[in-house]
Amino acid sequence: MKQYKKISDLGEFGLIERIAARVAGAAGVITGIGDDAAVTAPAPAMQLLTSTDMLLEDVHFRRGWHDPYRLGRKSLAVSISDIAAMGAQPRWALLSLAVPAGLPLDFLDEFTSGFLAMAAEHGVALIGGDTCSSRSGLVISVTIMGEQLPERILRRCGARCGDEVWVTGTLGDAAMGLKMLESDSSPSALLSADGTAGDGYLISRLLDPTPRVSVGLALAESGLASSMIDISDGILADFGHIAELSAVGGSIRLNDLPLSAAFRLRAEKLPEFPYQLAFSGGEDYELCFTAPAENREKIVDCVKKCGVKATPVGIVSSLPGVVAVGTDGNPFSVPDKGFNHFT
Amino acid sequence: MKQYKKISDLGEFGLIERIAARVAGAAGVITGIGDDAAVTAPAPAMQLLTSTDMLLEDVHFRRGWHDPYRLGRKSLAVSISDIAAMGAQPRWALLSLAVPAGLPLDFLDEFTSGFLAMAAEHGVALIGGDTCSSRSGLVISVTIMGEQLPERILRRCGARCGDEVWVTGTLGDAAMGLKMLESDSSPSALLSADGTAGDGYLISRLLDPTPRVSVGLALAESGLASSMIDISDGILADFGHIAELSAVGGSIRLNDLPLSAAFRLRAEKLPEFPYQLAFSGGEDYELCFTAPAENREKIVDCVKKCGVKATPVGIVSSLPGVVAVGTDGNPFSVPDKGFNHFT
Repeated sequence: MKQYKKISDLGEFGLIERIAARVAGAAGVITGIGDDAAVTAPAPAMQLLTSTDMLLEDVHFRRGWHDPYRLGRKSLAVSISDIAAMGAQPRWALLSLAVPAGLPLDFLDEFTSGFLAMAAEHGVALIGGDTCSSRSGLVISVTIMGEQLPERILRRCGARCGDEVWVTGTLGDAAMGLKMLESDSSPSALLSADGTAGDGYLISRLLDPTPRVSVGLALAESGLASSMIDISDGILADFGHIAELSAVGGSIRLNDLPLSAAFRLRAEKLPEFPYQLAFSGGEDYELCFTAPAENREKIVDCVKKCGVKATPVGIVSSLPGVVAVGTDGNPFSVPDKGFNHFT
Repeated sequence: MKQYKKISDLGEFGLIERIAARVAGAAGVITGIGDDAAVTAPAPAMQLLTSTDMLLEDVHFRRGWHDPYRLGRKSLAVSISDIAAMGAQPRWALLSLAVPAGLPLDFLDEFTSGFLAMAAEHGVALIGGDTCSSRSGLVISVTIMGEQLPERILRRCGARCGDEVWVTGTLGDAAMGLKMLESDSSPSALLSADGTAGDGYLISRLLDPTPRVSVGLALAESGLASSMIDISDGILADFGHIAELSAVGGSIRLNDLPLSAAFRLRAEKLPEFPYQLAFSGGEDYELCFTAPAENREKIVDCVKKCGVKATPVGIVSSLPGVVAVGTDGNPFSVPDKGFNHFT
């Protein structure tokens, strides 16, 4: 590989070749990077699931916070999470980059390493993309394709009155991590902290989320769940989408929201317990799903096999709208119902 | 539909709903816009072709030149062209938009109209996408999926020594249109000119290109061509990709390049005949393909049925590299070998 320092020295085709050289062949990939279009062979009887996400510098990420490796991982993780939320197997990805002229080539190489590491963890092959120059910040666009048998696909629209509302993992960690970064004028210690526990864990949940692919697949194959979505805008907003598309309503119990030890520890240092981070905080990329109450034990077993915990946190009701229920059993007023890009 | 003036009044979900409301169901679309991922059903035995393009304001387009309707058309056309270049049928598209906060809602509505008109012309269904705010210009990312039987797919790598090199339509029109806009300080007359002939035609070729889907499909079904690519960076650069991937070389004859009447008329007004626009001009979105010489008559017939002309313009040779041959039969030096985003 030739020695370059900046992407502008490399050129457009050099940039594509530099990424393509690191991509191996994979199942179902007939023609990968390098032709007008990629060619893949969907497995017989499978339906195709497709989703796309665009990430802009200083809107979705800051280069000061997101090191290139974790940014590469997260760029793909958020798209994989959409496939996980349908109970499907992610297969193929496209990556488009609009790159500021002065971006160091090391940044690109680290980004690619992170992207391909996340891809390998979930059996995803990078099959194509686009590159161009950007006159402002870095723009990342990822398209992901997955597969699943038609009868196993889990949608937002299947929730029924009386179903329980579940979430995987813990909620609010990423939002707490964001709050910490925002209030720290020199966050380098936070950013380099060990991600396995404490504050480092919360930061790592924000910068390096884990898509719940195996849980999504296990639930889809078990037939235990009636609807599913991933939590990118907070459970109230995202369960709200399930409720709307299922023509139902529901309530979420504050007391039952699963919180990590790191979240609780940090919360104790705040003047008020930050319930709204767990209710309305974005970017957890956990799964929210609904299921008939009689499936409760089977669901606990099914999810445990994937090394993840699932917690029932609410009930689907016939009354439209989603209500947060406070510690006293009364409706709890939540000021912010999740992140909206245009307000 | 509620009355809004600006996209910031509408909100992110309002924007998605506003686009989704205009999209009808289509063949193979099981779940369209509105879930975590779109669900489509590939036809049995078909392979999937996927391509993605990112368009940035002031890099790929200027809002002063590209009216929103034609910008919507072109955003999809350039991706459809990639599927056409594989000889495949375009089927499904994803559209992501990063929108400056002050963008008028009329702009979005017109853009959507253009995008959906281009989609309807080629049997493409819009099945999903992403929207977010942009702190600088408009960013458009389109992913397209198509289908074709494995044995019919035309790649860049099939050219053989002795094959003829063909192009559809005429070359250099878009580059001439760009040159005209760049040298005109108040191009409003050009931009509003009738697009059927003269200068308006050249502008229209730049702002509203036609992907050659029916020709690509006809060639793929006929089995007459050995390789194919679409011309986005000029025939020398794009045939160069065929040559490289086919491990061959070739020559392109200046004298035989098909030029439109509008191009010739405009060229006469210039101090020197602008051969380089036809050789190296980008964005024509015609097809370049190779075929054994004995297929010549059948190819003319096959392409004529699609209402398009195809012209043999060169020969594939065993010597590596692509040579432009001038009017005197000698190699012709071309200063610019096509558009490179990073130089």
